[in-house]
Amino acid sequence: MPVLLDSTAAPSLAALLAQLQAASGLQCIVPDSFAERVEQLKIRGLGSLEQAGAAELSFLANPKLGHLLAKTRAAAVFLRADDLHALESGQVAYEFLPVVCEEPYFAYAVCAQWFAQQRQQQLPKGIHPTAQVHPSVELGADVYIGPFAVIEAHVVIGTQARIEAGVYIGQDSRIGAQSHIYPNASLYHATELGARCIIHSGVVIGADGFGFAPHPQKTGSWAKIAQLGPVIIGDDVEIGANTTIDRGALDATVIGSGVKLDNQIMVAHNVQIGDHTAIAACVGIAGSTRIGQRCIIGGAAMISGHLDITDDVQISGGTAITASIREPGHFTGVYPFHEHKQWQRNAAVISQLSLLRKRIRALERAVQESEK
Amino acid sequence: MPVLLDSTAAPSLAALLAQLQAASGLQCIVPDSFAERVEQLKIRGLGSLEQAGAAELSFLANPKLGHLLAKTRAAAVFLRADDLHALESGQVAYEFLPVVCEEPYFAYAVCAQWFAQQRQQQLPKGIHPTAQVHPSVELGADVYIGPFAVIEAHVVIGTQARIEAGVYIGQDSRIGAQSHIYPNASLYHATELGARCIIHSGVVIGADGFGFAPHPQKTGSWAKIAQLGPVIIGDDVEIGANTTIDRGALDATVIGSGVKLDNQIMVAHNVQIGDHTAIAACVGIAGSTRIGQRCIIGGAAMISGHLDITDDVQISGGTAITASIREPGHFTGVYPFHEHKQWQRNAAVISQLSLLRKRIRALERAVQESEK
Amino acid sequence: MPVLLDSTAAPSLAALLAQLQAASGLQCIVPDSFAERVEQLKIRGLGSLEQAGAAELSFLANPKLGHLLAKTRAAAVFLRADDLHALESGQVAYEFLPVVCEEPYFAYAVCAQWFAQQRQQQLPKGIHPTAQVHPSVELGADVYIGPFAVIEAHVVIGTQARIEAGVYIGQDSRIGAQSHIYPNASLYHATELGARCIIHSGVVIGADGFGFAPHPQKTGSWAKIAQLGPVIIGDDVEIGANTTIDRGALDATVIGSGVKLDNQIMVAHNVQIGDHTAIAACVGIAGSTRIGQRCIIGGAAMISGHLDITDDVQISGGTAITASIREPGHFTGVYPFHEHKQWQRNAAVISQLSLLRKRIRALERAVQESEK
Repeated sequence: MPVLLDSTAAPSLAALLAQLQAASGLQCIVPDSFAERVEQLKIRGLGSLEQAGAAELSFLANPKLGHLLAKTRAAAVFLRADDLHALESGQVAYEFLPVVCEEPYFAYAVCAQWFAQQRQQQLPKGIHPTAQVHPSVELGADVYIGPFAVIEAHVVIGTQARIEAGVYIGQDSRIGAQSHIYPNASLYHATELGARCIIHSGVVIGADGFGFAPHPQKTGSWAKIAQLGPVIIGDDVEIGANTTIDRGALDATVIGSGVKLDNQIMVAHNVQIGDHTAIAACVGIAGSTRIGQRCIIGGAAMISGHLDITDDVQISGGTAITASIREPGHFTGVYPFHEHKQWQRNAAVISQLSLLRKRIRALERAVQESEK
Repeated sequence: MPVLLDSTAAPSLAALLAQLQAASGLQCIVPDSFAERVEQLKIRGLGSLEQAGAAELSFLANPKLGHLLAKTRAAAVFLRADDLHALESGQVAYEFLPVVCEEPYFAYAVCAQWFAQQRQQQLPKGIHPTAQVHPSVELGADVYIGPFAVIEAHVVIGTQARIEAGVYIGQDSRIGAQSHIYPNASLYHATELGARCIIHSGVVIGADGFGFAPHPQKTGSWAKIAQLGPVIIGDDVEIGANTTIDRGALDATVIGSGVKLDNQIMVAHNVQIGDHTAIAACVGIAGSTRIGQRCIIGGAAMISGHLDITDDVQISGGTAITASIREPGHFTGVYPFHEHKQWQRNAAVISQLSLLRKRIRALERAVQESEK
Repeated sequence: MPVLLDSTAAPSLAALLAQLQAASGLQCIVPDSFAERVEQLKIRGLGSLEQAGAAELSFLANPKLGHLLAKTRAAAVFLRADDLHALESGQVAYEFLPVVCEEPYFAYAVCAQWFAQQRQQQLPKGIHPTAQVHPSVELGADVYIGPFAVIEAHVVIGTQARIEAGVYIGQDSRIGAQSHIYPNASLYHATELGARCIIHSGVVIGADGFGFAPHPQKTGSWAKIAQLGPVIIGDDVEIGANTTIDRGALDATVIGSGVKLDNQIMVAHNVQIGDHTAIAACVGIAGSTRIGQRCIIGGAAMISGHLDITDDVQISGGTAITASIREPGHFTGVYPFHEHKQWQRNAAVISQLSLLRKRIRALERAVQESEK
């Protein structure tokens, strides 16, 4: 549906597949009978099976949607050999050009990246004259810095990084090569960001962690614990809009390489997140908790402080994790929803659960007694 | 309490009521015995019954608060005929000038809008010299663009739109007439916003949806799925501070006309929200979920992805919706709170619920057996 | 671990302790046998017992970590007399210089503040030439205003306030002395902020509360209730990144002195929060709720609107508070998490709880009957 390129700029399908293979190792096969068409077909965009138009490429990732193949208007479709065979053995007529690969979802991903890069290449380059870049800043080659961005003293920015309008980067921070920071994000001093990271608008990295000591002389009031540690973020990390990652109290807050954070996530001071862990939106992680590698955490989950979550743990959305998890597995704790009146009736019993258990025990004793 | 106008700028009550009727069709009646006073009384502001001063207008929306009428210092009060009759038949003395209407809460709403507009008219106009507006931007008449705003190529901005300081609007976006975008909001490229929308500070529209494919060659790591779809927002939509609405993966994320979103809401990619639905703060809506028209969703509710919520559904605050809702109604799923130790005792039973059910079944069989 | 000062700038421990005592009344004692070393030892930074280096000061706040004392590389350690006696009576060798005080955690807090201030003193001062400051603004002495900040008409800014890059402050607002507003925060008009407040990046204060009246003429649609009240914030308040505090509808939203708000908290219109209350991240507080003094509210708790929470109440993280709390105490309502399949089995029983209670009652009657 989103036609992205003029027909003059659109590549042939053959050329596009060659570029995808070069860029990401994608392997795919076009059946011989389509050899001529694959050279001629111009691909202007990418669409879902239902929405793709006649100059667009589509994909079948979920075999359950195979019935859409007969009807799609897409010019070509990434699909698995099995799904193509099923179509052909069912003698279903189809109009698209089949592109066979083992991982159609990955094929779609690299293809979408390719189209996004075409757009990216047309964006402005260089340092905008209004940007405030401190003379001590080290700038790599081909950096973009947008209007009204502020880069404080001693910051180091890697090659081809994109710092967009209104971004603030505090003193002594480091931004890795090819990282992209969207408008109005704020990075406090001493933030380290690896290569190829994507930081979306409204993200705040390095704000003070929430630390206070009871004030011994002023009863009830709090003495601030200044937060002196940095935030250290690996390579290939994506951080969604309005997510916040607080700086460490003394040691660092650490986000591993390949971590993917959705929007409006809160990462408190001294949290550590292992490589390739993916966390959906609205999750809160309290201070000093360690999360392992390759974990998957559902939206609006909440994780208490000072816990250890091991590698390869999956947590369902909306679950409150209040104790460490030492073994991989899938963990859930969501109160089921019901029609409001039904909920009222049942929720009223919650406060009596331990009493109900006692009553059951008493009944069991009474019945045992009577059976004697 | 907030006296908003100098006495020289304050309208007479008669003039104010005439303007409100012209602007929004508000119908109201001042009893004949007050005909002279309504012309003379100057209204400088609007206040609650408890806080309004002697030059302010107030309202009685909730009949349960009728006892406040005898004591209010307000100069005039919007109220229903029934509530005035109750006051007079009870022979309660009152000092205010009664303004009778069927919907006092609506009367208050349009009156508050009137006072807000007086303030608005005094705000700066025109394009601030520091704003960066790309030469290709189409600007309607009487547009305001504040300091340090950035408007990228090919954006179209409707008449009387207000774009405040530090706002970023990406390429190819469209802002409808009379829409108002508060400071430091960020709209990514290809965002479409209808007329008369209000976008508060810190809002991010069009950031990338959270989409990744497992990488077939690098185990455990994620390939980004570039997000190519736009965000399309109807007319008369209000979006609260720091709310985020992600762009679609391929197709659009769609917010219907008249939708009201409170602060810190997360709307994921390809979500669709029907007209006039109102959503309170801190709600998260996962990807591809469709929400119907005129729904009301309480604060901190969480809605899973790929669901269908039909029209006219009400969801209580704090509820996790994990399945589609096909019929209108009111749905709830909140764990009740108790004093901590009581909670501990009862929560310990939750993990044994299915076992308890078995024990009850066993008891029932034993009792049936013994009764034979 | 974070060595903060050059050895030339580092104070002697004796000098540092004297300054801490002068600044915050901290009382501590160095045993006589270390009288010479305390004058010579240069302190370059502050670290945890595990991470501190040989020119750093550390602390023992939690007696359970006393076993770390024997191994720490820290140059000096704040600790209680009891903990030092335990060490010496156990004849454990230690290398650090002991600094005995009653509240080592408070000592750490004031010490961390001291190091943070050293850094702060090196930051830029004055009004950046790009800042847009309306001619009617009243500026106290030694104010800093960063690049691209916008200060609208009739704002009053107290002495030594720091307004960083990209901050927006709307008309008629007041910023107290020594308050510090981090980059890209947005304060709407008529916001009052006390002295010594800290406002982190992405905070939005004074956006419109969420108020709508059903429109009597357009079924299903909403009439906006313009929000006319201010936000009033006391002294010594800290507000975490991306937290939002809405302005009042008619009266004010009020945050008491000494209140500490973590990141991504939502405070709705007309909420009142009492002095010294501390609220962890991701909490939502709905409209018109009043929270008392010295309350402690855990992360991701949710508090409904129009409630009264009295003083000295503690609420556990993740708890939904749906009724007023009239007595101090600790309140919790979190659904426990389990391994997913176990959760499924037990959650399925939730909808039958009131029925199970009836079945237990029936069994009790049957057993009573059979016992007669």
